[in-house]
Amino acid sequence: MTGAATRAARLARVRAAMAEQGVDVLLLSLGADLPWLTGYEAMPLERLTMLVLPADGDATLVVPRLEAPRVEHDPALFALHPWDETTDPVAVVASLVGTRAALAVSDRTWATFVLQLQAALPRATFTVTSAVTGSLRATKDPEERDALRRAAAAADRVAGRLQGGEIALVGRTEAEVSAELGRQLLAEGHQKVNFAIVAAGEHAASPHHEPGPRVIGRDEVVLCDFGGTADLYCSDITRCVYTGEPPAEFRELYSVLQAAQAAGVAAARVGTPCAEVDAAARTVIADAGWGDCFVHRTGHGIGLEAHEDPYLVAGNDVPLAAGHAFSVEPGIYVPGRWGARLEDIVVATETGPEALNHVDHDLAVVG
Amino acid sequence: MTGAATRAARLARVRAAMAEQGVDVLLLSLGADLPWLTGYEAMPLERLTMLVLPADGDATLVVPRLEAPRVEHDPALFALHPWDETTDPVAVVASLVGTRAALAVSDRTWATFVLQLQAALPRATFTVTSAVTGSLRATKDPEERDALRRAAAAADRVAGRLQGGEIALVGRTEAEVSAELGRQLLAEGHQKVNFAIVAAGEHAASPHHEPGPRVIGRDEVVLCDFGGTADLYCSDITRCVYTGEPPAEFRELYSVLQAAQAAGVAAARVGTPCAEVDAAARTVIADAGWGDCFVHRTGHGIGLEAHEDPYLVAGNDVPLAAGHAFSVEPGIYVPGRWGARLEDIVVATETGPEALNHVDHDLAVVG
Repeated sequence: MTGAATRAARLARVRAAMAEQGVDVLLLSLGADLPWLTGYEAMPLERLTMLVLPADGDATLVVPRLEAPRVEHDPALFALHPWDETTDPVAVVASLVGTRAALAVSDRTWATFVLQLQAALPRATFTVTSAVTGSLRATKDPEERDALRRAAAAADRVAGRLQGGEIALVGRTEAEVSAELGRQLLAEGHQKVNFAIVAAGEHAASPHHEPGPRVIGRDEVVLCDFGGTADLYCSDITRCVYTGEPPAEFRELYSVLQAAQAAGVAAARVGTPCAEVDAAARTVIADAGWGDCFVHRTGHGIGLEAHEDPYLVAGNDVPLAAGHAFSVEPGIYVPGRWGARLEDIVVATETGPEALNHVDHDLAVVG
Repeated sequence: MTGAATRAARLARVRAAMAEQGVDVLLLSLGADLPWLTGYEAMPLERLTMLVLPADGDATLVVPRLEAPRVEHDPALFALHPWDETTDPVAVVASLVGTRAALAVSDRTWATFVLQLQAALPRATFTVTSAVTGSLRATKDPEERDALRRAAAAADRVAGRLQGGEIALVGRTEAEVSAELGRQLLAEGHQKVNFAIVAAGEHAASPHHEPGPRVIGRDEVVLCDFGGTADLYCSDITRCVYTGEPPAEFRELYSVLQAAQAAGVAAARVGTPCAEVDAAARTVIADAGWGDCFVHRTGHGIGLEAHEDPYLVAGNDVPLAAGHAFSVEPGIYVPGRWGARLEDIVVATETGPEALNHVDHDLAVVG
């Protein structure tokens, strides 16, 4: 668990970053910044929850009265301001902001609240809080790395059973297998399933395929990409299996993919720009002639959120730092035919990249 | 399933409402407006998905390339514009908006995109799309009412087993019972569990309690409020059970609550302002001396979203219309001690309020 000392240290770093960037107030609502700093997560509902955190004063959590009893309130961190159903919570936030002008609002705050805040605070300027917190949250401390390792180990155990043929595939629908992967993540200690893509045959060419009623047959690829949240930190893994002996053409595609993924992991060293990690994986696929079939970035940061800084994408020149945690997940997609993706979570450390997923990287053949 | 004709009719009504309200472009992203109009739901991720729907032209769906294969694309409804990882999707949206000035963006669009759109379109004014779509979506057609009835019937079957003692409570944690309620909703045909509050004893005084490790004991109230999504439409029900013979004091509280809930349902007639339905339930509780213990509104609209227009809350003078669907869910909460809530989904019809939940409203005593 995250202790009061950790939270106080995070708050001090946030205040320093606010001063450096000239941000007068953070307005924290949906997303991970609020729980990272306070342990409390806003409910994604039409009633506004918002921590008003001024650079020059104490923080106040504005929260619907009916949700106030959910808050584990540490008065050293913030004051509690419950609002009633007939109160305008935006007016409460605006009065706490006062004449301060440079505001940063949580990236995921609903448009409805952003527009109301702008109307209530016409002289203020708005940016997003990730400009302040993104690089701080991207660098995981040892406790956070442990949490990511445990989440990855749980995902590995599920993936291992998939590869070992212990999760039946042939004759079941993608949706059924997706539900089973989710149940297994929960059984392995996750509290939440964030997604469980199961894409069979030609569906594996759709990177974010929605698992549906298609029945999985013999002799086809089944791409499984699943993850969830275990003790606040996220897992995310992709493995492909083949329900029968794969044709040589698919084996060739997969061996290119496997080499690309390994190249991406090997490139993920402290000091290397994110874009270069992307390029390292992409070059292998492009050199094999599949460049047009790798239609997404190589990876995304991971932590309290499933996708966060740093993003391994062309154009992102931010160098990797020790403690950065991210996915390395190239894919090759042939529309109408098949596809494959291979994904591990990796942490950049002073002694080189540490892969958190250890389950077999080869293409498993299942019955 | 929603057919092309239904979608075309909805689009025509939306265009009429845009003309009436002087809205030049709808920008539809997260939330139910987009699937209501097109059948496609945006993924809640950092890659922007946005339907650009001008009042004076054809619609275009701006979507990440890796998600384009997910879109069941009806060219009669919109053109598809996939964007690549190194493209700025906000610039794509801005160029589709052009010089049009009065924009409405989905209520749940992330702040990060709202602020980027404002920067890219400095002359535009922004409002939220619910100003256009809220009253249209609030009025359910016969097909939608059927879907809500089916979702409610599934929730009723789970609630019935709870009341019948078929779901073990004593000796299990709130979290375990919450997970079981979720599994049962899925087994009853729901595709998604949206929430499953289980609050025992003093926790029942926290309206949005997060189910946790507290073990449910004998002789206490267990408040269960659960719902999910079945064929796109939401369920939402609350029932309380008592693990033993309830003390007279709790029976009295519950009988006041039951009378208040019945008064709320009875008041939910076409033409009655939303605020009056709230007042009808609230007055019963206040007259019994518990007014301060009912800390939230009486209800919320329900449909594609778990909470949507119309809201049954003081100050909302919108009159109920035939086809409005909403919860009626008063509660009485005594901090530190106990609490109770009773909730049905109700549709306002020309012949009076139709409750969609029929499972017993009495306080069930379970073993």
